[in-house]
Amino acid sequence: MPLDRSHIVKSYEQELGQLRSMMARMGGIVENQVALALSAIADRNEEAADAAARQDPEVDELEREVEALAIRLLALRSPMAGDLREIVAALKITGDLERIGDYAASIARRSLKIRMMEGQISLSGLRSMGRLVQDNLRRSIDAITQQDSHRAMEVWHSDRAVDEYYTALFRELVTYMIEDARNIRTCTELLFIAKNLERIGDHATNIAERVFYAVTGENLPALRPRGGAAATATTEISPTTSSQEPDVR
Amino acid sequence: MPLDRSHIVKSYEQELGQLRSMMARMGGIVENQVALALSAIADRNEEAADAAARQDPEVDELEREVEALAIRLLALRSPMAGDLREIVAALKITGDLERIGDYAASIARRSLKIRMMEGQISLSGLRSMGRLVQDNLRRSIDAITQQDSHRAMEVWHSDRAVDEYYTALFRELVTYMIEDARNIRTCTELLFIAKNLERIGDHATNIAERVFYAVTGENLPALRPRGGAAATATTEISPTTSSQEPDVR
Repeated sequence: MPLDRSHIVKSYEQELGQLRSMMARMGGIVENQVALALSAIADRNEEAADAAARQDPEVDELEREVEALAIRLLALRSPMAGDLREIVAALKITGDLERIGDYAASIARRSLKIRMMEGQISLSGLRSMGRLVQDNLRRSIDAITQQDSHRAMEVWHSDRAVDEYYTALFRELVTYMIEDARNIRTCTELLFIAKNLERIGDHATNIAERVFYAVTGENLPALRPRGGAAATATTEISPTTSSQEPDVR
Repeated sequence: MPLDRSHIVKSYEQELGQLRSMMARMGGIVENQVALALSAIADRNEEAADAAARQDPEVDELEREVEALAIRLLALRSPMAGDLREIVAALKITGDLERIGDYAASIARRSLKIRMMEGQISLSGLRSMGRLVQDNLRRSIDAITQQDSHRAMEVWHSDRAVDEYYTALFRELVTYMIEDARNIRTCTELLFIAKNLERIGDHATNIAERVFYAVTGENLPALRPRGGAAATATTEISPTTSSQEPDVR
């Protein structure tokens, strides 16, 4: 008769390991959601769009499970120093991951509303921004699973480039709308998609900041490197920059 | 010679009270930021816009202070049950409050870019949405400070109305853009302002859900009441509804 392992009391190390693997799983799902959402736009892939949106409830459920386990660890194990900071960081990071999943699902849903008119609107800027945000998200999730403050620092520094992509895209899309009113509905969706991508990058940076604090006990500077105000840096990305400064927040 | 009180050890109750008053202060500031941001739009008040944006660093600093105190409480006081849930909720709620402050500052900055053409664009829908979001935010902050699950439940139920306002506004603004290309830049800012308001309402609902859990130990249903898909419910708010369903996320 097989031994029933379900009642074996887990060790503190096992529970901490379980928390880490739940974080890794949650990170993996939202990373996948973002990849699906971007392919939904780039390849006009409706299945990908549906798949991205369908994973939302699982992410929400994982956030609740992490919170429950964190509370259990805090109540029964009185973790100290680095472990305590890691558990507190996990509580905050799940909030960022849950938002990232929301934004990915939103991008996926919006991708279904895009009606491209041949040659009218270029998505190359959006694709490049998407790749950069995906890189930052991957690095921030690696930083969580490996508790790697250097990785976290890398993400923190490249948030500026995401903002600059967004600034250029914003101007480009507004120009398309002004040029031809038939572009307005699609460009409005694309504006929100670009904004959602910028928010995903922002949450990846939040995660990086939290990992850095959890690992080192030090805060990164309150003012993170910000792009978007640096209009000159965006001209090569978009030839259609206007004088308007969009708000990158 | 005056007694130096700085070294008197605080009691657990005093520290928990300090955490609550820091939450109340943080809530008060973001509530004020939202009020300033809305007056910046309604009354074209640039001082209000600057004031709203200026409070961002204080909110960020309070989030760090709450986190530090929460970690201290968890490390030294091993709080149990309701207290532990309240401290964990505080860690999550400060994240929501910090985001609300960000959105308010973003609305304030965008308000400076709005160029109204007399009689062209009506802001009445935005004003009504702003009032409702302010009410929800106020109630969610009262729910925190009074640990009131009934208040929390009220906010949770009225998130749907916020989404419906947003849906109506989205359609109205897109219509203005299609009618006259000179409206595009301003309506684009107004679209993001409406979206920021919707996000503020969403974070107020998150706060309500967290307070409810902290107080009762029970989760509200994973699926919150959602508006926006209910197009029929929006027609009375906006006469210019189109067939397009905006994404309320």
